[in-house]
Amino acid sequence: MNTLETIQARTSYRGAYLPQPVPRADLEAILRAGLAAPSGCNKQSTSLIAVDDPAMLIALFEIMGPGVGSTAPAMICVLTRRILAYRNRTFFMQDYSAAIENMLLACVALGYESCWVEGHITDEDRLGRAMADRLGVPADYELICYLPVGRAAEPTRRPDKKPMDERAWFNGFMKR
Amino acid sequence: MNTLETIQARTSYRGAYLPQPVPRADLEAILRAGLAAPSGCNKQSTSLIAVDDPAMLIALFEIMGPGVGSTAPAMICVLTRRILAYRNRTFFMQDYSAAIENMLLACVALGYESCWVEGHITDEDRLGRAMADRLGVPADYELICYLPVGRAAEPTRRPDKKPMDERAWFNGFMKR
Repeated sequence: MNTLETIQARTSYRGAYLPQPVPRADLEAILRAGLAAPSGCNKQSTSLIAVDDPAMLIALFEIMGPGVGSTAPAMICVLTRRILAYRNRTFFMQDYSAAIENMLLACVALGYESCWVEGHITDEDRLGRAMADRLGVPADYELICYLPVGRAAEPTRRPDKKPMDERAWFNGFMKR
Repeated sequence: MNTLETIQARTSYRGAYLPQPVPRADLEAILRAGLAAPSGCNKQSTSLIAVDDPAMLIALFEIMGPGVGSTAPAMICVLTRRILAYRNRTFFMQDYSAAIENMLLACVALGYESCWVEGHITDEDRLGRAMADRLGVPADYELICYLPVGRAAEPTRRPDKKPMDERAWFNGFMKR
């Protein structure tokens, strides 16, 4: 699959996973894809923790409750720091989002499914902080997203999307 | 180049561009890559305007002053709307960042260079709003980024990055 095909093939997978483990070499390739993302003023505000220890996976899902990816044999936890890029401006959110998208594409390229799970752990009950504590993450890092990683046990599904001419134009708003 | 190679090959290119135009089919492929990105609760908050009209490119760089990509034969302007995903939460920034990363990778896959230019046009002087007005973009859309697109006239350069073991770990903070 080439890059454009990978981009089109990616979906948010919320089904069950096969129990087969993800080799460390594949997890490292996914991490490297995340770290290769651009960051505002090259501040590299994103850090990553891959989790493939079954006991740690259970511990993290005990914090979150069963949900997206709870049968996956591995996950990537995404950490961010609100580093100033220049003056009073931060780009940490853009930085981690680009890193996440790279990792989602790397998963697809390697035959895995995943899903960007952010809102559930960054809501007011701050599950991400409890997960971070379990992983020994200090207070200046926030755990804002996790990505399950594994082989799908069910078919993937594609959400309905608006037609292209409602979202993309040439040389002016709504122009084709 | 496969997907993992494309991800590693992407750099932020700030040099001069060759004057050769970008075919519409390539611009459409880049737009499709952007639209294929995930969005929080599938709100599809990102919209795109490709600019390849030389007069419009000149007009936009008159607003911004000469800078990154001012010799590029095309650009993609990225628009966002602050749509509520659920309760009081928005994910528009994550949405557009994932779309941008997809488009940067699509550029590399098609042999083009680009650069994520955001801070310069979203600073307090709000150049993005003036660009949006020039493109006929209504007030509920914000123009927050542009991506030049074209063939590089100069070598690409890779910024220094921290070693992997300072940013990515297994099963716990700073653990390998």
